[in-house]
Amino acid sequence: MTGWLAIAGLGPGAEALVTPEVTAALAEATDIVGYIPYVARVAAREGLTLHASDNRVELDRARHALEMAANRRRVVVVSSGDPGVFAMAAAVFEAVEAGPADWRDLDIRVLPGITAMLAAAARAGAPLGHDFCAINLSDNLKPWELIEKRLRLAAAADFAMAFYNPRSKARPEGFDRALDVLRDACGDDRPVIFARAVSTPEETLRVVPLTEATPEMADMRTVVIVGSSLTRVIPRDGAPIVYTPRSAPE
Amino acid sequence: MTGWLAIAGLGPGAEALVTPEVTAALAEATDIVGYIPYVARVAAREGLTLHASDNRVELDRARHALEMAANRRRVVVVSSGDPGVFAMAAAVFEAVEAGPADWRDLDIRVLPGITAMLAAAARAGAPLGHDFCAINLSDNLKPWELIEKRLRLAAAADFAMAFYNPRSKARPEGFDRALDVLRDACGDDRPVIFARAVSTPEETLRVVPLTEATPEMADMRTVVIVGSSLTRVIPRDGAPIVYTPRSAPE
Repeated sequence: MTGWLAIAGLGPGAEALVTPEVTAALAEATDIVGYIPYVARVAAREGLTLHASDNRVELDRARHALEMAANRRRVVVVSSGDPGVFAMAAAVFEAVEAGPADWRDLDIRVLPGITAMLAAAARAGAPLGHDFCAINLSDNLKPWELIEKRLRLAAAADFAMAFYNPRSKARPEGFDRALDVLRDACGDDRPVIFARAVSTPEETLRVVPLTEATPEMADMRTVVIVGSSLTRVIPRDGAPIVYTPRSAPE
Repeated sequence: MTGWLAIAGLGPGAEALVTPEVTAALAEATDIVGYIPYVARVAAREGLTLHASDNRVELDRARHALEMAANRRRVVVVSSGDPGVFAMAAAVFEAVEAGPADWRDLDIRVLPGITAMLAAAARAGAPLGHDFCAINLSDNLKPWELIEKRLRLAAAADFAMAFYNPRSKARPEGFDRALDVLRDACGDDRPVIFARAVSTPEETLRVVPLTEATPEMADMRTVVIVGSSLTRVIPRDGAPIVYTPRSAPE
């Protein structure tokens, strides 16, 4: 039996949003590797070893998974959402590039999943229905100046914007600065969607104007979407519908 | 029985990439509405009416679906990929906003799917593993000048970029101009991924440097991904791995 490595996206939380491809890979695996709360989403069974680790050890986790696949294990590295969006796929390929040459010949597949911004957008309406960008607001792995530069250029391009990792206990002030930059670059008249833990029992969705957005509305389980200048809010009983039209005027 | 409208993403093509949520909605539907090749992906059965229409009639299709839901039908509007990314969700909400007030009270849900750029990224490695943007290159619904402006700003922001609808028979020259803008704005040293019909039997994947990219490499079934300045290519036997590292240097 040869080993393999699948880097799989579990989607935002609900079982109904896990693709059959991922479910099949989990069923064939001998080993599951990932951050503690994601590994906890995989049911234990005989013959399956769960390797749960804390966050900020992504490269160690990637190397461990690659070593096991090289030793003929059938390994699934699990991410929440999609593994290619601010998640484990890039970490695994960083480890492949820096690792032994024979890791390049391993059977490595990336299995896509429903990424958080698209689950959040679906709940709110269609705020990403026109051109948009996705920015990781954590400055653990890049300088704050680059984040601010990207926010200003994205506003100049009039992209709708989706923000991952808007706020953590370690960086309470970063999102406050991001909101200031956005108010300066976009003006006040933008809807902001705070979508937390979409598709789980803890799901909350909140839509506020950019003027009223505050850092406390986000935590690490929240995706934040800011509309473009064309994004519309349709009021109705209950949560409004937020969508960005397909067309932009001449 | 009350009616409802689900706007569902069928993913890029393979059955294994359709979420159980979407499969369940299709099983409960009385009517399926959509572009001909997408409706063709839904199996016919007794009690299910298939309403297939040509493209460029998205608003008519949306109104028809809303009318049926208002008449207590259980309607699924199908899109390829994710319905919120350059697809039917925005068209439906445009129709809702312009339509009768009681359409706002309908039970309308958006069911996310695996969007083409994430399926393509998964096949290539992890080119969207850092900040990125998604741009629809069709100038049917926006001026070319806005597309060019966004390309230049996205290059200045050093985003990886995913392009939907890069090329059609009606607009053979647009993608050529986009490649010229990118070579001017990014320099030559970027990997470009042409991913066609990912997860279908017609799937092809091609990775070339920006200098060697030509318009003929894309058609309307192709998603094109252009790396950022940090995107890496790992050579190996067979297709190379393309990924963007998680971190950006100070």
